[in-house]
Amino acid sequence: MLQSTMMDVPLSIPFLLERAKSLFADKKVISYIPVGIDPETKAPIPGRLEETYGQMYDRCHQLMHALAEAGIQPGDRVGTFATNTFRHLELYFAAPSMGAVCHMINIRLPDDQVVYIINHAEDKVLFVDNFLAPRLPAILPKCPTIKLVVIMGAVPALPPGAVDYEAFIAHKATEYTYPEIDERQASGMCYTSGTTGNPKGVLYSHRAIVLHCITAAMGELMGLSEADTVLPIVPMFHVNAWGYPYMCPTVGSNLVFTSMFTDPKFLAKVFADEKVTHTAGVPTIWLGLLDELDRAKQAGAPHNTSSINSLVVGGSAAPRGMIEAFGERHNIHVIHAWGMTETTPLGTMNTLKPAHHHLEKAAKYDQMALTGRPTALVQIKLVDEHDHLLPNDGKTIGRLLVRGPWVTASYYKDEAGTAATQQNGWFDTGDIATINSEGYMLIQDRAKDLIKSGGEWISSVDLENTLMGHPSIREAAVVAVPHPKWDERPLGVIVMREGSSVDKTVLDAYLLEHGFAKWMLPDAYEVVAEIPKTSVGKFLKRALREQFKDYKLI
Amino acid sequence: MLQSTMMDVPLSIPFLLERAKSLFADKKVISYIPVGIDPETKAPIPGRLEETYGQMYDRCHQLMHALAEAGIQPGDRVGTFATNTFRHLELYFAAPSMGAVCHMINIRLPDDQVVYIINHAEDKVLFVDNFLAPRLPAILPKCPTIKLVVIMGAVPALPPGAVDYEAFIAHKATEYTYPEIDERQASGMCYTSGTTGNPKGVLYSHRAIVLHCITAAMGELMGLSEADTVLPIVPMFHVNAWGYPYMCPTVGSNLVFTSMFTDPKFLAKVFADEKVTHTAGVPTIWLGLLDELDRAKQAGAPHNTSSINSLVVGGSAAPRGMIEAFGERHNIHVIHAWGMTETTPLGTMNTLKPAHHHLEKAAKYDQMALTGRPTALVQIKLVDEHDHLLPNDGKTIGRLLVRGPWVTASYYKDEAGTAATQQNGWFDTGDIATINSEGYMLIQDRAKDLIKSGGEWISSVDLENTLMGHPSIREAAVVAVPHPKWDERPLGVIVMREGSSVDKTVLDAYLLEHGFAKWMLPDAYEVVAEIPKTSVGKFLKRALREQFKDYKLI
Repeated sequence: MLQSTMMDVPLSIPFLLERAKSLFADKKVISYIPVGIDPETKAPIPGRLEETYGQMYDRCHQLMHALAEAGIQPGDRVGTFATNTFRHLELYFAAPSMGAVCHMINIRLPDDQVVYIINHAEDKVLFVDNFLAPRLPAILPKCPTIKLVVIMGAVPALPPGAVDYEAFIAHKATEYTYPEIDERQASGMCYTSGTTGNPKGVLYSHRAIVLHCITAAMGELMGLSEADTVLPIVPMFHVNAWGYPYMCPTVGSNLVFTSMFTDPKFLAKVFADEKVTHTAGVPTIWLGLLDELDRAKQAGAPHNTSSINSLVVGGSAAPRGMIEAFGERHNIHVIHAWGMTETTPLGTMNTLKPAHHHLEKAAKYDQMALTGRPTALVQIKLVDEHDHLLPNDGKTIGRLLVRGPWVTASYYKDEAGTAATQQNGWFDTGDIATINSEGYMLIQDRAKDLIKSGGEWISSVDLENTLMGHPSIREAAVVAVPHPKWDERPLGVIVMREGSSVDKTVLDAYLLEHGFAKWMLPDAYEVVAEIPKTSVGKFLKRALREQFKDYKLI
Repeated sequence: MLQSTMMDVPLSIPFLLERAKSLFADKKVISYIPVGIDPETKAPIPGRLEETYGQMYDRCHQLMHALAEAGIQPGDRVGTFATNTFRHLELYFAAPSMGAVCHMINIRLPDDQVVYIINHAEDKVLFVDNFLAPRLPAILPKCPTIKLVVIMGAVPALPPGAVDYEAFIAHKATEYTYPEIDERQASGMCYTSGTTGNPKGVLYSHRAIVLHCITAAMGELMGLSEADTVLPIVPMFHVNAWGYPYMCPTVGSNLVFTSMFTDPKFLAKVFADEKVTHTAGVPTIWLGLLDELDRAKQAGAPHNTSSINSLVVGGSAAPRGMIEAFGERHNIHVIHAWGMTETTPLGTMNTLKPAHHHLEKAAKYDQMALTGRPTALVQIKLVDEHDHLLPNDGKTIGRLLVRGPWVTASYYKDEAGTAATQQNGWFDTGDIATINSEGYMLIQDRAKDLIKSGGEWISSVDLENTLMGHPSIREAAVVAVPHPKWDERPLGVIVMREGSSVDKTVLDAYLLEHGFAKWMLPDAYEVVAEIPKTSVGKFLKRALREQFKDYKLI
């Protein structure tokens, strides 16, 4: 085959770091991190720290020297057990830039899963946020591969053998010579926070990260630039914080991090103080923020969110009611996105076609509630149980398959997990979805959460998102409970808004109004104080199914 | 080295074609092409043709079948000798999607160079615009590799042995199975239109084209989307028409082509009729348009250019006066860009930093006259004659080197040309430039056009662009003429605006006002009717130097 004459320049994370320094050295990373404890409430107190990308560059190079001197070699896994801070950002760049792998460990997992993950990944070093240090005694003794622990932020006393991050990098040289990078080598690592079985590991490549970064910054997607200040609330221990830590320094956007502080009132204040233009998080975060914005507005002291151009919601399907409430009550444009640990994560984003802007209100929010179109370089398709391609007609429900240069082709050292999800070059997401004729996908459910009633499928997500649009309901989960005649029937599990009440008759009418057929309506509702959630804020359906497995439908 | 678990999905042009079909099938390609001859004036008459990307997709697949049946194999070069039309666009996609190479031949080159290029590339087939068919008898007999000629558009009579494009693809199937694509294989080819020596060939790769396409569409650069209608006036026979033919179908922008019709009055009408939002071309085109917009405005019948969000100028340095005139007199935002055949072509683009928007007028246009910052994935640097790195201080002048995944590492079958321009993994552009501390580059001159006066360098481009800001001057070129004492001294060669006059005293004062030192001023001026230009509209300095080599400075 005739080869091109083009240079063989690898796509690499050090390239992004060099770009940040050469073009955006004065742009800022602002971090609100715990700097002390309130003596009365015992709650951590946030302090505001600022560094520039120029300073970050120097500190990344110092960190590479420190890691190399500590024996870290190309290919070694550098574990992080940390929230969103400038130091975590430095690890995002420094570990892969020296050829090592930045392994972000989900801090919300229980100790035994953290231990499993560290041992499976064979992490050599572990970087830990100060406020997480108390968990180390339960973890470290079971993790023989870890040779070094580095604590990020002040602690009353360093754990035995651990070093402080600032001491670790202090006085190192600020010019580290990058090794040669093969763009397909591993740059980062995350484990899925699956609800069944052991967590499964995905290794990102320099190529995947750079392509993801450039594509997400396209005008048709996020279109971020130097004019932006971005606050990713999505944690950095969760799928590359959706790519923002790499994208912002590449395009010169300021970054704002809030570590462990995700209280809605605090976030609303940071949005205003830092003039945040773009933010991103999971639905549960935004439901909380929406409550707070509503409360403050009603109290006559509304928060100033006027700087926000777009708010991305992903991680699980966002209720249409929430998208509408942000738009109508607070003039905040919500962008619905979809992705997974296995997809780096950006798979689809709901950017509107020009014609959608002219839709009447209800139709426009219907449109915005869809999960979006594939980002450039990603392909999606629907197949049936025999793996036959299904039509993109907006109605036919099928298994969602995805393919692209930042989609995983396997799980790390997990042949069974790989075999269960790979299919002729496509990744089976485990999601059930529709795709309409304009290419907009809508997640209907996790395959395992679908309710099979009398041979028909009922989407639990559809019901949940509509129920959460009802003014009396704060959260709603719908799960299958066994039924003698229909096999399974839906049960609604709901959290009421303070001071609200509602009964089945009202909800039946509400759902019928919203287009559900009578046979799709939940047979009963259970009111609970809280719906159990996964480590990343998704409803833990497995726990609900377990809890209600003997539920008797009347 | 630890490899990632990511899929090895190649970056490929067929992927872009699939995306256009699946997401943007209803978006349009509008072509104004010659459809007849005015019986009185004998001038070609434009007709307006429309196809959708959906139709384009089907026709590309038909074209692939037709080419395969005609014996075209992966790796073969498919020559095009054509202007901007929907058929040329189909060739841009079809040839590389079947594994062949789309070789765009510059129609403005003289016959002997066209013959040289076709033979050097060993084109197997040649696709020719109808109005260029009269040139074939002088070319084809000397091109033994060409087995087939396809004429695009109606002709009074097909040349012997030639076939009509529509007949060529008619009745073919609309689903062609793409071969496997190696992203580094050649997808396209262009020859430089250098002013010395034989043209040199560059082979683009699928990888380079896709990366270039995604990057150019970033929000910080062109940020194009479905909301845009793009008219690239830059010809498709010139460095991939700066990437628009691949970018627009990828992001869903409409495309408008005007074939051979580049008369300013005609273009102004198309801008209004098609509601063009983005356009791109070389300075000479824009100087003509500016004249026409000024004329129409003064005549009380201004053209409507209100749909235009941005106008890109590249190909050679744009005069600051022109950028200001468009902005101040016609409210059109000009974006200055730089690139070469060897760089696919996008190297730098002048997008403003947020702070630049607040500059006072003069400083803002000074800023906009710079050639811009490197696009993501491209690196630039300055070196001196000993190849030592020079500082980015906005003052130090040096040789501009460039590096990136869409920059050439060699010339096709040209070892001498390759050796003269490749330097330790960087491409030596032959340009002399400065880079300021914010990373903005400014081309000062072609290395060979610099004027060496008494051991000091004088930038001819600087003088030209300032002179072209003078209200009496339409075009200005400055060339070195031999001088007994100073080795070389600058001579100004100028084209006056209609009805204007000016003398050296006035121009001296004007240049001194604009910051030139006295020793930099041209020693004399020659008024000419027209400045000779290269095939792509650049000043042909070589011809001017030749013309004035015996010029006696008084």
